[in-house]
Amino acid sequence: MKYENYQSLKIRTERKVAFVTIDHPPINLFDTELFKDLERFYKEVKRDDSVNVIVFESADPDFFIPHYDVKDILLLKEQFAAVPDKPGTLNAFNLLFEQYRTMPKVTIAKIAGRVGGGGSEFVLSLDMRFAVIGKAFFSQPEVGLGIIPGAGGTQYLPKLVGASRALEIILGCEEFDAEMAERYGWVNRALPEKEIDAFVDQLAYRIASFPIDAIKLAKESVHNSSTLHLHDGLREEKHLFLKAVIESPYAETRMKQFLEKGGQTRAVEKEIGSVLTEL
Amino acid sequence: MKYENYQSLKIRTERKVAFVTIDHPPINLFDTELFKDLERFYKEVKRDDSVNVIVFESADPDFFIPHYDVKDILLLKEQFAAVPDKPGTLNAFNLLFEQYRTMPKVTIAKIAGRVGGGGSEFVLSLDMRFAVIGKAFFSQPEVGLGIIPGAGGTQYLPKLVGASRALEIILGCEEFDAEMAERYGWVNRALPEKEIDAFVDQLAYRIASFPIDAIKLAKESVHNSSTLHLHDGLREEKHLFLKAVIESPYAETRMKQFLEKGGQTRAVEKEIGSVLTEL
Amino acid sequence: MKYENYQSLKIRTERKVAFVTIDHPPINLFDTELFKDLERFYKEVKRDDSVNVIVFESADPDFFIPHYDVKDILLLKEQFAAVPDKPGTLNAFNLLFEQYRTMPKVTIAKIAGRVGGGGSEFVLSLDMRFAVIGKAFFSQPEVGLGIIPGAGGTQYLPKLVGASRALEIILGCEEFDAEMAERYGWVNRALPEKEIDAFVDQLAYRIASFPIDAIKLAKESVHNSSTLHLHDGLREEKHLFLKAVIESPYAETRMKQFLEKGGQTRAVEKEIGSVLTEL
Repeated sequence: MKYENYQSLKIRTERKVAFVTIDHPPINLFDTELFKDLERFYKEVKRDDSVNVIVFESADPDFFIPHYDVKDILLLKEQFAAVPDKPGTLNAFNLLFEQYRTMPKVTIAKIAGRVGGGGSEFVLSLDMRFAVIGKAFFSQPEVGLGIIPGAGGTQYLPKLVGASRALEIILGCEEFDAEMAERYGWVNRALPEKEIDAFVDQLAYRIASFPIDAIKLAKESVHNSSTLHLHDGLREEKHLFLKAVIESPYAETRMKQFLEKGGQTRAVEKEIGSVLTEL
Repeated sequence: MKYENYQSLKIRTERKVAFVTIDHPPINLFDTELFKDLERFYKEVKRDDSVNVIVFESADPDFFIPHYDVKDILLLKEQFAAVPDKPGTLNAFNLLFEQYRTMPKVTIAKIAGRVGGGGSEFVLSLDMRFAVIGKAFFSQPEVGLGIIPGAGGTQYLPKLVGASRALEIILGCEEFDAEMAERYGWVNRALPEKEIDAFVDQLAYRIASFPIDAIKLAKESVHNSSTLHLHDGLREEKHLFLKAVIESPYAETRMKQFLEKGGQTRAVEKEIGSVLTEL
Repeated sequence: MKYENYQSLKIRTERKVAFVTIDHPPINLFDTELFKDLERFYKEVKRDDSVNVIVFESADPDFFIPHYDVKDILLLKEQFAAVPDKPGTLNAFNLLFEQYRTMPKVTIAKIAGRVGGGGSEFVLSLDMRFAVIGKAFFSQPEVGLGIIPGAGGTQYLPKLVGASRALEIILGCEEFDAEMAERYGWVNRALPEKEIDAFVDQLAYRIASFPIDAIKLAKESVHNSSTLHLHDGLREEKHLFLKAVIESPYAETRMKQFLEKGGQTRAVEKEIGSVLTEL
């Protein structure tokens, strides 16, 4: 599939990885244009069997996605005469971010520059976040603006960093650098600028080389752990595990290849991480 | 409001922050006197619109609140002929700590000295904890005394540090220093003695300067994440977000001021953390 | 009790601690023999009142339990004509690991060498994990083999390390060293080889010296936090706390001894960690 005519995104694909560069001058502000592009990209990529992994990065070294357009938030006040009765439905951001969060492909953010507000909430809905030491800065500035995070930040963040650190981030509205973001769990890890491209590329190509059935089932099962009771999650895992073993055409082949290549011998087991990429 | 005639607390307020110093010689033991003072302070401060943030600290450099009075726990045995049928109601500690945990103001503990048992459970019910490197020591000594934590420790701690580290803390009954407490997530972070006062003061005054409506709604939404299913939490967040945007008198003003001061331009976005305090 | 005639385990007990050495050449592979031994050991040790704490370690410095026997997983495909309807029951691994996870004794893994797949899932079901720096390596290699973790890994791991780091581990199938495993929360902590034996022995003997009633009730209450709503967990904790205070024969004795030895005085409270072992 060709990903063309995006206003704010540049997209290239290589070896089952789509690299999506956010390129939306002057500051990669999250606005309706970027929203529509992310919505369209989701719809296109989910049908693209040649893509297993998606890596988001920024064309601007100073800004990833700083936050949502405050002018648009001000317009909300005019659209609503009063606060709608709850519970109601999820909003458009929730729906899009939940689609990204649960899509049967792997999503990775490689972050340099400012990411905050709705931009931070977008990357929180992705599977993994890696940040450049000295270059990436994270914030949830909403409370300082008199509002609150409204695209999932109050739910996604405490699940990753715990309620106390989430309260510090969301109430304090301070910027966190990459290393502090790693200590708190806001990102998977912080990496030196010299190393991060090689690290993320290697991880993305590696995962993209694994069978998509296994990727899908594993991701579904991990996400169950945040919504299902432990024993229901285990029962569901058992079901998904058997699905992989019995129905996936690649499982049998890869397990047999692993044994043929010396799996379960001392020498090969000491290199199990690299053997998996040779199947 | 004047906070007077407390037996075990010294309270002063400044710029919407209440500083509560636990001063209960000889060792700041958690006893009925301290409990009554904390209960009275909660009732008074919750009605005090001039306070947005509360900082707890200790007058004794060696003891914050070491644990609950063991003599009182021994008396429990005389009060009960047999273990009451469950589930029953929450106990007085649960009720007080849950009131602190969910109060619509921000609560911070700045910890030097020993904090353990019921004292640790009290600070776990607060929004954030910061600890002095080399001076703060944490423990849950109950199992070593033949009992178990009974004021929320077995519930609050695993949500912050995970079940395995909570089991090590609660079953091992060892003291943890500030840096280890940070690694495990027992505190938000450990700070050098020279820096912690400036850090906590700055954070407290900063949050206290933000609109109380936003603080309240944000805190409520973060806490929902630990009790609601993800999608219910998102729906509730959407509702609270719209409440802030539409009903809060400060949201519109602050967002407009942000734009007037150059929000959404490169230069100002690079200083977003400090711009928020100038609105 | 004598623990004899195990094929893959060597078991010795000392001061209420059972040391279980996995000794199953050539590589400590998780197979039906090891499974049966772990099942038999569970049944025997749960009835053994002379054991309060169990420490698992490996006889092989390079391998702890690398993963489950892939030949057995391949056989599954022949056993099932189709994927069974869900939800169904837990599988034999789930049942055994859940029995270990919830048993009323304390379980500790001291890990050197490779631990992965079903071996990793086994240690994830134990209360605590400590890893030797430079010697311990962790992985979930299933997705690279075309399958997914099937003995609890997709549920236990995200509860400890968060969904994003669990997805990186489970989808990336890379080996994690001890220090990285600590940073992510896969293990309680990573320790230098010279220190880990003394550390784990001290912790195991210390816990084993505490009253088993308190250990049981505390562990039950901590595990409630992952399956019960917060207020239900607090109500249950209140009940278990009163059970310890009122019904346990040791609670009263130990609390009185603590007071007699100077508990609640400055000097003794500064040494509370060591005082508890003298009761």
